Amino acid sequence: MANSIPYQSCKITGGFWENRQNINRQITARAVYERFLDTHRFDLLKCPNREDIDWTPHRFWDSDVAKWLEGAAYVLAAHPDPWLQERAEHAIADLLANQWPNGYMNSYFTVTPTETPFTNRDAHELYTAGHLMEAACAWYEATGKDDFLKAVCRLADRIYCVFVEEGSASFVTGGHPEVELALVRLANTTGQQKYYKLAKFFLDQRGNNAKDTPVTDWANALYDMSHLPLAQQHTAEGHAVRAMYLTAAMADMCDDPVYQKVAEDIFKNVTEKRMYITGGLGSQHIGESFTVDHDLPNDTAYAETCASIAMIFLAKRLLSATAKNCYADVIERELYNGALSGISLDGKSFFYVNPLELEPAFNQPHVSTNHKIRRPITQRVEVFNCSCCPPNIFRVLGSISELLYSVENDTLYIHQYASSEAEWKGVHVTTQTNYPVDGRVHIRVTGAKTIALRIPGWCQAFQLNKPYTMHDGYAYVAINDDEEIILDMDMPAVWMQTGAYVPECANKLALMRGPVVYCLEGVDNGSCLRNVAVVPDAPISPIPSAEFVAPILKTKGLYKLPGDHLYGRFQDLRQEKELTFIPYFAFANRGESEMYVWLNYQT
Amino acid sequence: MANSIPYQSCKITGGFWENRQNINRQITARAVYERFLDTHRFDLLKCPNREDIDWTPHRFWDSDVAKWLEGAAYVLAAHPDPWLQERAEHAIADLLANQWPNGYMNSYFTVTPTETPFTNRDAHELYTAGHLMEAACAWYEATGKDDFLKAVCRLADRIYCVFVEEGSASFVTGGHPEVELALVRLANTTGQQKYYKLAKFFLDQRGNNAKDTPVTDWANALYDMSHLPLAQQHTAEGHAVRAMYLTAAMADMCDDPVYQKVAEDIFKNVTEKRMYITGGLGSQHIGESFTVDHDLPNDTAYAETCASIAMIFLAKRLLSATAKNCYADVIERELYNGALSGISLDGKSFFYVNPLELEPAFNQPHVSTNHKIRRPITQRVEVFNCSCCPPNIFRVLGSISELLYSVENDTLYIHQYASSEAEWKGVHVTTQTNYPVDGRVHIRVTGAKTIALRIPGWCQAFQLNKPYTMHDGYAYVAINDDEEIILDMDMPAVWMQTGAYVPECANKLALMRGPVVYCLEGVDNGSCLRNVAVVPDAPISPIPSAEFVAPILKTKGLYKLPGDHLYGRFQDLRQEKELTFIPYFAFANRGESEMYVWLNYQT
Repeated sequence: MANSIPYQSCKITGGFWENRQNINRQITARAVYERFLDTHRFDLLKCPNREDIDWTPHRFWDSDVAKWLEGAAYVLAAHPDPWLQERAEHAIADLLANQWPNGYMNSYFTVTPTETPFTNRDAHELYTAGHLMEAACAWYEATGKDDFLKAVCRLADRIYCVFVEEGSASFVTGGHPEVELALVRLANTTGQQKYYKLAKFFLDQRGNNAKDTPVTDWANALYDMSHLPLAQQHTAEGHAVRAMYLTAAMADMCDDPVYQKVAEDIFKNVTEKRMYITGGLGSQHIGESFTVDHDLPNDTAYAETCASIAMIFLAKRLLSATAKNCYADVIERELYNGALSGISLDGKSFFYVNPLELEPAFNQPHVSTNHKIRRPITQRVEVFNCSCCPPNIFRVLGSISELLYSVENDTLYIHQYASSEAEWKGVHVTTQTNYPVDGRVHIRVTGAKTIALRIPGWCQAFQLNKPYTMHDGYAYVAINDDEEIILDMDMPAVWMQTGAYVPECANKLALMRGPVVYCLEGVDNGSCLRNVAVVPDAPISPIPSAEFVAPILKTKGLYKLPGDHLYGRFQDLRQEKELTFIPYFAFANRGESEMYVWLNYQT
Repeated sequence: MANSIPYQSCKITGGFWENRQNINRQITARAVYERFLDTHRFDLLKCPNREDIDWTPHRFWDSDVAKWLEGAAYVLAAHPDPWLQERAEHAIADLLANQWPNGYMNSYFTVTPTETPFTNRDAHELYTAGHLMEAACAWYEATGKDDFLKAVCRLADRIYCVFVEEGSASFVTGGHPEVELALVRLANTTGQQKYYKLAKFFLDQRGNNAKDTPVTDWANALYDMSHLPLAQQHTAEGHAVRAMYLTAAMADMCDDPVYQKVAEDIFKNVTEKRMYITGGLGSQHIGESFTVDHDLPNDTAYAETCASIAMIFLAKRLLSATAKNCYADVIERELYNGALSGISLDGKSFFYVNPLELEPAFNQPHVSTNHKIRRPITQRVEVFNCSCCPPNIFRVLGSISELLYSVENDTLYIHQYASSEAEWKGVHVTTQTNYPVDGRVHIRVTGAKTIALRIPGWCQAFQLNKPYTMHDGYAYVAINDDEEIILDMDMPAVWMQTGAYVPECANKLALMRGPVVYCLEGVDNGSCLRNVAVVPDAPISPIPSAEFVAPILKTKGLYKLPGDHLYGRFQDLRQEKELTFIPYFAFANRGESEMYVWLNYQT
């Protein structure tokens, strides 16, 4: 069991993620705040009379505010920012003023006396409570102020009372998991094992009691994995975010080998059978859900930003238990692809759904019915009605430094490569790297006898300036204090394929370089891009890019210019065409455009 | 303006269509009747008290019975069949007994006094009336009995009164076209121009009045082409069957060059931009509708059997006006592919939706929600709740001989090649051919000075034993009475591609031989067939097939055996594999199986 070096003890000092953290602090923190202000999420905290307002609040708006507060805490832990601090304090004050005498907190229920707490399993009350707990823990860590933390403890106590002691709620487990994760964090922050037990209670009860019926009439019990006791489950089912939050909570049950095993099994099921190459999770918009193995449509993908984030949480917990590169590899896949694509390069706008293909011309509303087979939106937006993703990616980018290192006994693990400096429990480490522009990493450590360097699954060759032994994808190196360790990973662009039968990827290839998945966009390559066939033998040239940080890749492929005739005899009319690939995370930043990750090929 | 030789004057005497007509008479006539009996469609004709029945009738059940009666008339015109005759006579007697004093006919409305005729534009009353008129015309032609015909004239008179004289209906044009076609037929059969005028009235009114609002809340006015006056329309919009019935009716307006032009424009729009290679029409199940140009998804195709049949009706009318092979080619495309695939080889079961891909493994219901993105069913069924297609294909197969020949002045046109004998207005023709097994056709004609032989668009080379001149895809040959004309069309198997940008067909090929589209089925080729890449240079061998009549085609392609890894570096692991293609019309006759028309290729 390795302990992650926490975000407060590790600072990103340069490179790819420093750039992103700067945007996160300077732009995203404000942009999310202002959109939530425009849409009355902060007004709701003041608990106005419902008769006096001309807007309609939602049951889980407080969770949006909570995630923004959590992100703000991470940002403030690294950089003083009076503007942000003041607004966060006001929001917290409003939240605290709004707590019920019995400990309950939820502004929507406060202003809506016609609804009784804990009578509607689909109201996301436990989910919202969980986000308040996480925000309060972060606020306490960042500022040392404990009023918010004390308030969420009273909230957790109220939940314990209603669900464990009284059994007076209309349901036993919430429709949308999250409180389970949050309670473990609250237990760790406060030292109160009662909260850990409450988390375990919710896990033990799921799928084990008759009170928890499906949350909506169009879903069945698989939708929130209530179809079987969790201890008997081995696959990821239903709503992808719910499934991953829940599985992350099982991975948190470090005293329970059964839940550990279930979490490992589900991780394996997802990453080996139900995950897009970008790390995207969820194959259909109906239920925002997993479907069946290898069903991974590119154009109608769901792949919610929050699901990729939830996968980071799961993989981080599994990695803490066992240092295997498969866990850290997935974190990396999500960070550079499926999660990061959820936010624009300028940090202001967001995708909820992250497809692997966009064909705007075939998404037209000019049809005879008011519906079309649903496809993802083609342009990022600043706020959604259900705006869970924007503050979620904000908090992840704010706390990314907690994903880099962990320590176990005398060994320092390096899971993710980023220029950074950490000081924790006698270990001091500095890393210098341009990763993922190239794969060269310089490391200096004091206070540890061994460092374990993750060799990513994508890496087929590397050089290390010290002897090492490999174990579970980590290179273990005995070190002396302050000597320079240099890891140099070859990072060629490579064509990827599916080995298993994924119909939507059959006879297609995708381009990756290091951890970064690439895509072909219309803005660089013209239109009708399904007519492209890539040529895997053609040379691929990386071109430095200030815009994307990771390089652009140029290669040659074949392309058939569209003609007039609908059907005709085959003639091979394809001509050579220069192709420009950009990082997938950067798609849809330059106007509406076609986009493809997977392309046909010709050898 | 050429006049088709009617079905009563032309008999199929052998080959492909004789086989199908035998099954149609011996099996389908009975199978459709029995399923309609089981499902109370014939019981409804007896107008029981609704309180006494434990089944729920539907507003347009009479149209199903009418199409069955129409088909029965065609069958009886060629072959006496007491079983069929007796049941048809009983059904007609019930229908006649059920006519209202004012001429109105519709068993549903008779048994449902809570609903008032002509107050609901979506009730399909005019559609049902149209099918009754067509059935009555066919019955009169086949048997000489005019009681049914007289009844539908009274029905048409009632419609004239309500819609033209009184304007007392709640709408001006019906939601589902069909009565327009039927009224022209009724005018031709009875010589009453009033019915032709009524048809024209409905065409003139569509899109021209405020009373005709969209038939359902999820559709807009394009759904039934009521968004603009028809004279201003140039594209096929909305529900594919409605659009094609309506356009066929415009093509029937032989005194109106504007409607002729609109019909030609819409035909062109469909065949050049919105038609599957099988002739299938309708790109999405929502609204069973056309969408936008080149949007032709293979797996979620709608391509309703009735839409292909409606296209035959449209093309037949355009062909009567102008002998161009583009019209007869489309009839042929529908007959051998998109329409014929709607009925099983044994004549007992049916597809409503005719997709170009089936992947049963990805159609599983085992998901967390009660819905999945809708895909077509994978096995034919014997009856549908909305069972329009089975009697529709029954009547088309029964009257197929009317599609072969037409006469204009001294010229006999041969549009479709089938062993047959026709005698009409002094012209006598016999054709002997194995078409589409091969492309050799022997013809003897007396009573005409010229024959015009369609050279199909698919035919790149042919031999004719007489001098000819080509015009609009027809070879015009001066002939002497009773001399043998031999047309020999080369019929190699050829790979087809899309010239225009059809995303779903990009980098893919389809196999055709003559008019027959082929497909790859799991039952012959194993599973995971999207992993196939065809090799267009490989030889293709036709193998005779008693089962399908048209030959099986064998060739070699490449195939990647599915492995375990979800994603890995590209290695070209494809191996040579023998591929067996069968005619598309015969898919899904040997159990549930994968099926593909379009496949990737490797040159």
